[in-house]
Amino acid sequence: MDEMLIKLGEEAVKAERELAILNVTEKNNALKLVADALVSNADSIIAANAIDIENAKKNNMSPALIDRLLLNKERIEGMAEGLTQLIALPDPIGEVLSMKKTPGGLMIGKKRVPLGVIGIIYEARPNVTADAFGLCFKSGNAVILKGGSDAINSNKKIVEVIKGALREAKVSENAVSLIESTDREITKQFMKMNKYIDVLIPRGSARLIKTTVEESTVPVIETGSGNCHIYVDESADIDMAVNIIYNAKTQRIGVCNACESLVIHKNVLKDALPKIAAKLKEKDVEIRCDEEALKVCPDLKAATDEDFYTEYLDYIISVKTVNSIDEAIEHINTHNTKHSEAIITKDYSNANKFLNEIDAAAVYVNASTRFTDGFEFGFGAEIGISTQKLHARGPMGLNELTTSKYIIYGEGQVRG
Amino acid sequence: MDEMLIKLGEEAVKAERELAILNVTEKNNALKLVADALVSNADSIIAANAIDIENAKKNNMSPALIDRLLLNKERIEGMAEGLTQLIALPDPIGEVLSMKKTPGGLMIGKKRVPLGVIGIIYEARPNVTADAFGLCFKSGNAVILKGGSDAINSNKKIVEVIKGALREAKVSENAVSLIESTDREITKQFMKMNKYIDVLIPRGSARLIKTTVEESTVPVIETGSGNCHIYVDESADIDMAVNIIYNAKTQRIGVCNACESLVIHKNVLKDALPKIAAKLKEKDVEIRCDEEALKVCPDLKAATDEDFYTEYLDYIISVKTVNSIDEAIEHINTHNTKHSEAIITKDYSNANKFLNEIDAAAVYVNASTRFTDGFEFGFGAEIGISTQKLHARGPMGLNELTTSKYIIYGEGQVRG
Repeated sequence: MDEMLIKLGEEAVKAERELAILNVTEKNNALKLVADALVSNADSIIAANAIDIENAKKNNMSPALIDRLLLNKERIEGMAEGLTQLIALPDPIGEVLSMKKTPGGLMIGKKRVPLGVIGIIYEARPNVTADAFGLCFKSGNAVILKGGSDAINSNKKIVEVIKGALREAKVSENAVSLIESTDREITKQFMKMNKYIDVLIPRGSARLIKTTVEESTVPVIETGSGNCHIYVDESADIDMAVNIIYNAKTQRIGVCNACESLVIHKNVLKDALPKIAAKLKEKDVEIRCDEEALKVCPDLKAATDEDFYTEYLDYIISVKTVNSIDEAIEHINTHNTKHSEAIITKDYSNANKFLNEIDAAAVYVNASTRFTDGFEFGFGAEIGISTQKLHARGPMGLNELTTSKYIIYGEGQVRG
Repeated sequence: MDEMLIKLGEEAVKAERELAILNVTEKNNALKLVADALVSNADSIIAANAIDIENAKKNNMSPALIDRLLLNKERIEGMAEGLTQLIALPDPIGEVLSMKKTPGGLMIGKKRVPLGVIGIIYEARPNVTADAFGLCFKSGNAVILKGGSDAINSNKKIVEVIKGALREAKVSENAVSLIESTDREITKQFMKMNKYIDVLIPRGSARLIKTTVEESTVPVIETGSGNCHIYVDESADIDMAVNIIYNAKTQRIGVCNACESLVIHKNVLKDALPKIAAKLKEKDVEIRCDEEALKVCPDLKAATDEDFYTEYLDYIISVKTVNSIDEAIEHINTHNTKHSEAIITKDYSNANKFLNEIDAAAVYVNASTRFTDGFEFGFGAEIGISTQKLHARGPMGLNELTTSKYIIYGEGQVRG
């Protein structure tokens, strides 16, 4: 393995042991100093960012991507504000989640502890650098960052500023480190650092996440895509359905909890679909329908089978007609990405059935799928939304960046 | 991907949806029928096992391994008894772990649900077949088994018997399936069935586990090796230390929670080591010492650096002398496999320090490391002991074979 990676790994493991036993006052003090340092070094961060922006323009990066890459005073203040918000959150570390006495008199407790060393792989958003550091740090973890090569100058400067503030706080500066190499081979090796890294979290495009899952031998938390459905039940309040669908589809387009597909009970199709179509027309949403739906609204487009597997992240939505709630559940469980699903219904049993039988991180009755979010769920922060089932499912806050260990108090017990 | 694997995957996913909503009476009824069927089909299971035993002898398998492979009436009754014990355990599924109201009036609950489809990769113990099925089934999961090729005839017959009993119980027989191919290529593909399998659990040798971690793209729960330490603190009750060390080293030799290394404070070395050595001599334990320890007991063997990284699983133990509890903690955190570690001490602060700073699944004060076990911890069952930090750490019972989903009760809320 690359010497530089081994060095970063060893330093992170050493820092991890120090971070694990910091008290919350020490952690909050450091976060405050880091937040202040980002603001007071805004000019030099902006200067470093300008090099990335210039290179991006030379490389003909799209204006949308350049905007994601851009840092200005306001955005740097936003990064600092994110860290300041973490100060207000309770320390997730040290809580004893349960403590029981065994028949043999051992007291066995389960205590919340940091994961250890977290690796974050991300793309061209330099604000993730401060954001990921803050979440990992507050939860007692060391973090090794691998950002996109387009943001390398910005990231180097931000990490330099964070490290300076950590030294000032008398905390190991190796609480955060950045892989400065942009060599793909190094990234591949990073994904196999099981000896040093406890978990890898990829943040970014579906392609980045897929590569990480496939290449990594370190455990990965998959933060994923959302092919989210709203099912309009036979008994739905149609006005409520229209309102929720409009919100879930159009309130923000490029996000994983946006609605991508409608499933409508055939008995309300004639009433509901024209109203939904009229409302979505306000935002020029293209509606792709199955055969039944097309009979009701012949002006809309026809859907292909592929549409029902597609996360558009665009002003497009598909419509599937079903004969029963069972067919709706079957359709959703077959086509969804296990992210967020909603039913609109007045029927008590159908609400329960949907909640019980849909396989997804978040299942809603009569609410927009857009609520699947760490802030909306009251976690105060979010590192991503897990669509896998292991360790964490749904929005991940500080608690999801921890694990547990058993602590056992004995008086000389041996096993018989 | 291999057609047979795809078929098994699709059937398991279908079965999973059925299992997820079975109630506990239905599950217990099926477990009872399976347990009865194993006993009433003991003769045909023994006949199938006889073929495996004959092949093993032809292949010059060691007597110890042949013994692990052997099934007789008593062992089959043991398998049935294991399933019967699961009936008495509470259903882990359906519990709502928390429910909170958001400022916007959404009720957000976190509910325990099955993982989905679990893959188990194991070696030549055919009893794992029934055992793993039982644990996965009670926790609402479908399971795909890949047992060792040496036990293929035994496993085929056991799975056939289980499937028959499931049909009798009117439960999908695809709750369990066995990969009958012994082709290694098929095993490799099995480890990449992300579309169908939610988690892979390897059970067996360090080599099997390492291969699974390296080859798999499906999330793996690593059940691991144990290089477990006992630290004899300056203030230890030496008689208690001798008793616990004797138990942790010799009560059972080939297990992951056995003690493999002693760490002794220099101020008690002269008093403790001769007593420990005398006691361990009763079982002819070979003691491999660092320089300081060798000065005290020159008759013992010298340790190499490698000894301190070795899980012997044998009548051998290493001894390291330290000048302080900090040095002990540093030594253990550097050399251990994050399994189980113990301190023997009368000192309140040192006990706390050890509990706080040792990085392991289970950390003990004044008790034997041998207690790290699902049954001893009161879980009533165990699928293995996790030494990784993600999802589950330490003994894994039924709860560790579950995940959660958020259920959200709304009244028409949309995101602003």
